[in-house]
Amino acid sequence: MELGLRSETIRRANLSAIVRALHCDGPLSRSELGARTGLTRSAIRVLIGELAAEGLVDELNGPLLGTPGRPSAVVRLRPGRAVVLALEVAVDYLAAALVGIGGQVLRMRRVDRSRSSVSVEETISDLVALANALTEEDAGEAIDELVGICVAFAGIVRRTDDVVAMAPNMGWREVPLGDLLARALGTRLRVMVANEADLGALAEQRRGAGAGVQDMLFISGEVGVGGGLIVDGRPMTGATGYGGEIGHMPLNPAGGACGCGSYGCWELEVGELALLALAGHPVDGGRNEVDRVLADARTGDEQALAAFDQVGTWLGRGVAGLVNVLNPQLVVLGGLFQRIYPFIEPAMRSEVERLTLRLSAAVVNIKSSSLGVDAPLLGAAELAFERLLDDPASLAESTNQAEWRVVA
Amino acid sequence: MELGLRSETIRRANLSAIVRALHCDGPLSRSELGARTGLTRSAIRVLIGELAAEGLVDELNGPLLGTPGRPSAVVRLRPGRAVVLALEVAVDYLAAALVGIGGQVLRMRRVDRSRSSVSVEETISDLVALANALTEEDAGEAIDELVGICVAFAGIVRRTDDVVAMAPNMGWREVPLGDLLARALGTRLRVMVANEADLGALAEQRRGAGAGVQDMLFISGEVGVGGGLIVDGRPMTGATGYGGEIGHMPLNPAGGACGCGSYGCWELEVGELALLALAGHPVDGGRNEVDRVLADARTGDEQALAAFDQVGTWLGRGVAGLVNVLNPQLVVLGGLFQRIYPFIEPAMRSEVERLTLRLSAAVVNIKSSSLGVDAPLLGAAELAFERLLDDPASLAESTNQAEWRVVA
Repeated sequence: MELGLRSETIRRANLSAIVRALHCDGPLSRSELGARTGLTRSAIRVLIGELAAEGLVDELNGPLLGTPGRPSAVVRLRPGRAVVLALEVAVDYLAAALVGIGGQVLRMRRVDRSRSSVSVEETISDLVALANALTEEDAGEAIDELVGICVAFAGIVRRTDDVVAMAPNMGWREVPLGDLLARALGTRLRVMVANEADLGALAEQRRGAGAGVQDMLFISGEVGVGGGLIVDGRPMTGATGYGGEIGHMPLNPAGGACGCGSYGCWELEVGELALLALAGHPVDGGRNEVDRVLADARTGDEQALAAFDQVGTWLGRGVAGLVNVLNPQLVVLGGLFQRIYPFIEPAMRSEVERLTLRLSAAVVNIKSSSLGVDAPLLGAAELAFERLLDDPASLAESTNQAEWRVVA
Repeated sequence: MELGLRSETIRRANLSAIVRALHCDGPLSRSELGARTGLTRSAIRVLIGELAAEGLVDELNGPLLGTPGRPSAVVRLRPGRAVVLALEVAVDYLAAALVGIGGQVLRMRRVDRSRSSVSVEETISDLVALANALTEEDAGEAIDELVGICVAFAGIVRRTDDVVAMAPNMGWREVPLGDLLARALGTRLRVMVANEADLGALAEQRRGAGAGVQDMLFISGEVGVGGGLIVDGRPMTGATGYGGEIGHMPLNPAGGACGCGSYGCWELEVGELALLALAGHPVDGGRNEVDRVLADARTGDEQALAAFDQVGTWLGRGVAGLVNVLNPQLVVLGGLFQRIYPFIEPAMRSEVERLTLRLSAAVVNIKSSSLGVDAPLLGAAELAFERLLDDPASLAESTNQAEWRVVA
């Protein structure tokens, strides 16, 4: 009788379970791997042998813990064996990182840019320069193979074809960023593009404030406000990848026109421009101007403190609505909100308490991002690894060994 | 080498795949079953044999379609072999149905009740009377075994222990409705309790307006407003089952106090009480009073038409925000909104168009419920079947054969 699952399918699924456990949880002993994957000792032995032959893992003798018997060897991933290139495009800055399997950041660069350099052409040439600068740095770790490239983008992205559908704060529409970057980088790899808040959520869940949490919301504020949802442990991106556009909830019936074409959007009350305007600072001053408002607030400046209070109150209104709709265990505030968190927290919490259903409020934890400004970039690295994590056997079959040279 | 999945596990999973396909899609030929489950002809033959021996399926000769060869036999579920009791508790009415495996409604009753009869004790004794009345009706189909009981409830429900956590419009808090009903019905079966909008979403997705849709939102309006979300084909209920409380999004900064303890909640603008107040009718008049407003509107009464316009506009605001956050393919408006749909649709659509991101608006379809007032009750039946659908082999092992008598 045919059972529907063939043994080759099962072998690949089991390799995936092992590599995923090592990638997400770090080095593990064989018995810990058995406990996490449900595989027997002999199955683990065979599969680890395959991965070691491929150069993807090695085994180190673990510490002697004074327990009888042999010390348990620890299996770990070799970061340089499979590397991804993570990129980030925000209104105010660009960033790039090389990240090894297992999550080790091998190299990272972040550069500010001016609002006048946000055209598609300049963005692409700046990203290529940033990627090249990364690869010219001293390696530290030898890099065998580039297995994925992903861009975190501050705008509305269609993941199916890696197109930026709309970026109101940069004036982009229907830009095939993935294809354009692949050509500019000279790579045959797919260049994935995803929304920065979705990726921030992924990073915080896997390596940050949301470790182990199954239902969480990551709120990323800069000029715009985006949301990344994790539902039942899985990213929720909606029917066509446009989900999580929480910055465009119409929360203020008296609000003005938004760059998205709507009116009274939440981000008009809580984004960087709102904060700077309320504080009486130039609204096009970017991150440096926000730093000045923070400095003012630290000296007790009343207008700065009132601006943070108002942003905090509006932030609380939106968070309350989202908690009532989504019933998450955790809300993580990142980007701008992480930087200004101490000044907005009291007003935000007071409004959340006033407007959230008691039952949902009782189970939700609200905190600022633990990965800070790096969350979207680290999330891009995680997404770029997904194909390998799903099917580590593909590494042995790949023809990309020379691929790294192309980018380097 | 142990492969992680044992053959008994696979046998049960394959039985589940077959019964689920027949339950959701209706009678199928063996070759259609093969196409849907990926199982071979011989596997299908063995498994159908097991299910037939258990009395759960039979095979009928299919129609001769003029194609050469033998006519293909059609496998169908026998509705009376496994039956569930579905119950519904709303502010204004109670309902009950017996539904056979495959989704056939064998008997159904719905009774209005007054706002003064919503105490826990009266509700339970009324539900038991309704269930007994159902079982006294002419069977039509002989019933072998009761396999599940589920209650659709208009309030905030904790699914893990079948407790009504809060029902602001009935004054209930922390009522162990599942346990209380199991005792009153004298059954050893678990009495599941779930939110009516969550169940409406399940029913619409499986048998109604959302058939085959993977990402949808069901909005159920009565006195309160609830939401049922389907994300990637699966119900999204949040971390503790309180998700979907969309009626309590704080959408009106100028709004009043809500029974939930918050302020400016959406349901204060779009629920039954808002409609009746705007139309100048007694707000405690219930469904009959809504019928009078509908009658007024049909005669061109200006206050009634203006009331529907305003409710439609506020409905559109909330739908726009939810579409931006969730990016669904489909929004289904049920309950009150289904009944008043022709009168609220123009204002609702105009506001949705004004406030929804163009990209998300382009992929979403908004329509009124096709199951109407029955959606939550039918969803309760679907949820009550889940245990059997997950493991049809449990039927052969059950000791509930006599159980039906207890309820009957």
